[in-house]
Amino acid sequence: MFSKETYQQRRALLKKKIGSGLLLFLGNDDYGLNYADNTFRYRQDSSFLYYFGLSYAGLSAVIDIDNDKEIIFGNELTIDDIVWMGIQPTLKEKSSLVGITYTQPSVDLKKYLNDATVKGQIIHFLPPYRAEHQIKLMNWLNLPIERQKASVDFIKAVVDQRKNKTDEEIKEIEKACNVTSDMHLTAMRMLRPGQYEYEVVAAMEKVVKDANYEVSFATIATINGQTLHNHYHGNKVKEDQLFLIDAGAETEMGYAGDMSSTIPVSKTFSQRQREVYEVQNNMHLASVNALKPGIRFEEVYDLSAEVMVDGLKELGLMKGNAKEAVKEGAHALFYPHGLGHMMGLDVHDMENLGEEWVGYNGEPKSTQFGRKSLRLARPLEEGFVLTIEPGIYFIPELIDQWKNKGLYKDFINYDKVETFKDFGGIRNEENYLITKEGSRRLGKKIPLTPKEVEDLR
Amino acid sequence: MFSKETYQQRRALLKKKIGSGLLLFLGNDDYGLNYADNTFRYRQDSSFLYYFGLSYAGLSAVIDIDNDKEIIFGNELTIDDIVWMGIQPTLKEKSSLVGITYTQPSVDLKKYLNDATVKGQIIHFLPPYRAEHQIKLMNWLNLPIERQKASVDFIKAVVDQRKNKTDEEIKEIEKACNVTSDMHLTAMRMLRPGQYEYEVVAAMEKVVKDANYEVSFATIATINGQTLHNHYHGNKVKEDQLFLIDAGAETEMGYAGDMSSTIPVSKTFSQRQREVYEVQNNMHLASVNALKPGIRFEEVYDLSAEVMVDGLKELGLMKGNAKEAVKEGAHALFYPHGLGHMMGLDVHDMENLGEEWVGYNGEPKSTQFGRKSLRLARPLEEGFVLTIEPGIYFIPELIDQWKNKGLYKDFINYDKVETFKDFGGIRNEENYLITKEGSRRLGKKIPLTPKEVEDLR
Repeated sequence: MFSKETYQQRRALLKKKIGSGLLLFLGNDDYGLNYADNTFRYRQDSSFLYYFGLSYAGLSAVIDIDNDKEIIFGNELTIDDIVWMGIQPTLKEKSSLVGITYTQPSVDLKKYLNDATVKGQIIHFLPPYRAEHQIKLMNWLNLPIERQKASVDFIKAVVDQRKNKTDEEIKEIEKACNVTSDMHLTAMRMLRPGQYEYEVVAAMEKVVKDANYEVSFATIATINGQTLHNHYHGNKVKEDQLFLIDAGAETEMGYAGDMSSTIPVSKTFSQRQREVYEVQNNMHLASVNALKPGIRFEEVYDLSAEVMVDGLKELGLMKGNAKEAVKEGAHALFYPHGLGHMMGLDVHDMENLGEEWVGYNGEPKSTQFGRKSLRLARPLEEGFVLTIEPGIYFIPELIDQWKNKGLYKDFINYDKVETFKDFGGIRNEENYLITKEGSRRLGKKIPLTPKEVEDLR
Repeated sequence: MFSKETYQQRRALLKKKIGSGLLLFLGNDDYGLNYADNTFRYRQDSSFLYYFGLSYAGLSAVIDIDNDKEIIFGNELTIDDIVWMGIQPTLKEKSSLVGITYTQPSVDLKKYLNDATVKGQIIHFLPPYRAEHQIKLMNWLNLPIERQKASVDFIKAVVDQRKNKTDEEIKEIEKACNVTSDMHLTAMRMLRPGQYEYEVVAAMEKVVKDANYEVSFATIATINGQTLHNHYHGNKVKEDQLFLIDAGAETEMGYAGDMSSTIPVSKTFSQRQREVYEVQNNMHLASVNALKPGIRFEEVYDLSAEVMVDGLKELGLMKGNAKEAVKEGAHALFYPHGLGHMMGLDVHDMENLGEEWVGYNGEPKSTQFGRKSLRLARPLEEGFVLTIEPGIYFIPELIDQWKNKGLYKDFINYDKVETFKDFGGIRNEENYLITKEGSRRLGKKIPLTPKEVEDLR
């Protein structure tokens, strides 16, 4: 974890931003796969990590602004705990590492919150994204699930702090990015026809475990790149296919990396693969070049989509004016997702706090297919860390649906598109820090252009 | 999955056992690590798998015995689902693979249960072990969490079926055991001084992923074997230490393996390590030899503990009569856990159904330290699959506690024990099927005796 001063300063700023009331932080618990004691790997809540740094199950915390108190609630170990789980520092010792003096047993929390309510204090909490959070809020605040409305003031204050990464955070993110790069380099070097997708996953995840890290999200490694979040790994890899990887690591502190790459299973790209790949590369490079403080990220998204339309026009897949095609949403047949997202303590940073505040700063969001999946639209600021990940896909079910409905016939050459239904998908993704002047790539470079990819293969 | 006849027969037998009422099966959902959409790997509920075979999030099932109906509730894919997650068979197609004709949208389930209640049907459900289950029961049956009492009839009937493994299940468990063996063999071959524990974990889990399996529980690989469930992997491994591994794989169908091994970091055991290891081996072999239908597993546990006491007497660590020492609980200073547990679709098979019925068949359970951790005590039957995993540990905190309290001074030579506080722990674990005549080890053999271990190293 960082020094205790980091956490103290973060909490002090948060208190100042919100001004009054009581802030309740729900730490994450362990969760059972198939019975209570056979748990998934433990993952602490990211805002809890940001303000309190402790990655242990069974903790809650309160910042009581009105009474100027900070308390961590949790239980000390019993001898049974020590026999089964080993000796650990006491809760008091752990808490002092993050600058917290007061600790209380978990059982006291309900009374503390009840007393605060009686005294008329406002209790703020963040959106409950786990069933266990909902049950806690129900038990502790007598709030039925449907009335568990998170505090907008709390959300806005947390987003405002977490969105701009400090130098020590950037160092940590770069560690995650470097291991993420190694995952991709390992896969790119090993991939051969005849392997199964899961063998590539096994090799990539070994890289993660060898660093004592965890994956930051479920690894995508697939010959069906046209399926955006494909977690099936049972296919045998064949010559002439494209292989799409979207994978990342997170450090012991919880900071994430998230990159994508697309490689030919054969040693080189086919002519058709290369042509589409070049279009995707142009989208990627144009987006990266546009990154700088002040530009709205939705503008960069528009740019990436327009570059794609122009490229696909040359290939005979699209037609008409690129700006108009993008404005009307015709590009989304091939590019049905956003350009990127914030990254930090979460791979989609702060996603649990809601896109409205994280990605849109309260501004309205489009409901258009494709554009609605843009997680980040707001003007960029120095210290933002984000992904750049444009993609081009040929999704047979979507093509059939649009064609049958006669959608966007002015922009799409369906006859030509039909011949690409077996193509698959292409995505490349890198991680960028917004700097004073522009941007900086985080983590070791992974091959991006067709030549770079073929050289490594 | 198995053939649809397997699932049909299982359900038919269950219906016959229970006779009347409505059986509600809660399938498991996806669960978010740090926000809702960044999910842990998916794991279906094991009883759902046993009777309905389908490993997908978002399903529930009803066996309405009174009306002779079997229904799976779930939702069909939207075009957005297909774009993000790929094309899948329809719910109807999936359900027909397990012999289910009737499917309904999830939203219909609440009404179905409400109608059943109005008609006076008894609704049976199994113990909710996930927060998401509790919320479902609350929403669907208007049952507050504290009143969600599982049906004992349902539990007993399920235990009665799942406890005896069929030939096709045993084949599947053997697959899990073979990959589990490979995990251990890989670790035993690679372990060298200077490595970190997590590098050994990385290599073992690669074996699992290379088979397209998952770990059946969080891997233990530690120089602190005296901590029974130690999931910390950050230590550097040094000469002269013992390294304890407890790890297993589960197949795509969910069947588990679970083995343990203890190896010297140096190429050979020290004299002291070998002496304790021989005692543990004798416990292990005596237990295996005793396995047969009819014998109470608690008897085998007593035997293993008595063998340990006799062995530790020779080493000067214990004294007095072995039977008495075990009866009074003195052995638990060194052996504070049980001898083994059922294994099948869960690594601790059916643990969510409660030890009372799974391991004790309704008979009372000891509360004595050590013995209370015996998960299985009942008479063994043909078709039981279980683990044999005796251990000997030197747990400094426990030694201090017992010594300070003056416990079992007639059986324990504390002066000698003090000199073993830096020893660590030893456990070996294999998986056995109870056969008509005795037992059969499942999975490839892993080294057990000191000679076998040293030969592999």
